Amino acid sequence: MISQTAEYALRAAVTLADAYPAPTTVQVVSEAVSVPVPYLAKVLSTLARAGVVTSQRGKRGGFTLMRPPDQTSVLDIVQAVDPIERVQGCPLGRPEHHEGLCPLHRRLDEAAARTEQAFRDTPLSDLLSGTDVTGQSVIPCSIGAREVATT
Amino acid sequence: MISQTAEYALRAAVTLADAYPAPTTVQVVSEAVSVPVPYLAKVLSTLARAGVVTSQRGKRGGFTLMRPPDQTSVLDIVQAVDPIERVQGCPLGRPEHHEGLCPLHRRLDEAAARTEQAFRDTPLSDLLSGTDVTGQSVIPCSIGAREVATT
Repeated sequence: MISQTAEYALRAAVTLADAYPAPTTVQVVSEAVSVPVPYLAKVLSTLARAGVVTSQRGKRGGFTLMRPPDQTSVLDIVQAVDPIERVQGCPLGRPEHHEGLCPLHRRLDEAAARTEQAFRDTPLSDLLSGTDVTGQSVIPCSIGAREVATT
Repeated sequence: MISQTAEYALRAAVTLADAYPAPTTVQVVSEAVSVPVPYLAKVLSTLARAGVVTSQRGKRGGFTLMRPPDQTSVLDIVQAVDPIERVQGCPLGRPEHHEGLCPLHRRLDEAAARTEQAFRDTPLSDLLSGTDVTGQSVIPCSIGAREVATT
């Protein structure tokens, strides 16, 4: 459904959301989300270029979400690193489909649109520690890892 | 959303659905769906191994859908060539997520499940020529191409 890069970006974003508004270093995020530093640094740079995260240099520097977790969506993160592909036009370039897609490509685009909407409707704040519908407490992978790492 | 291989398989499946129950040669499908014969032959072989299409040798041979178009879904085709990846377990292998996914991975799996369901609910017969909600006639890319090719 989503690429490995988008998966990594989301893990990192959840880690930054949990720490918000405090900055987190690449090293700490890397350990929390089980992604090597060089790859993660590229992902975080892409998120920074897209204006989703911001970085501060210096001793107490690191990456922070640009906006609070309840104002940053899963879609913001995914679109920054590996956008969901909508079917903009007939992939076969048929002139008769300039005005509207054929049934197959319309359905495929509808599926992409539904995923986009679900991701748009999910703020990062919904992905932090909490309680699930059965009353069990849940913690994100990355936050769980960080807690393990600091104990 | 779906891979190039899945897109090609779906174009081919729509072509076979339109011709059903008559067999169609790889050459005819290739021309209809704008996919080179060697690549398409591999895709059709994969669909045949999965039991979605069947091939008949001989002068009047070719590929046919195994079941009628209203009993073959978009999901049948996609799963045969490039299955939608569900999140079966915690990608980070956290022991605390053995029983249930964290909020991020649960949402990602829900998105995959919704796409699966939409594809399961779409028989190939829904993708053939017809009339859209605005009353305009629509023809699939591949069928459009075939008509052009035979005129």
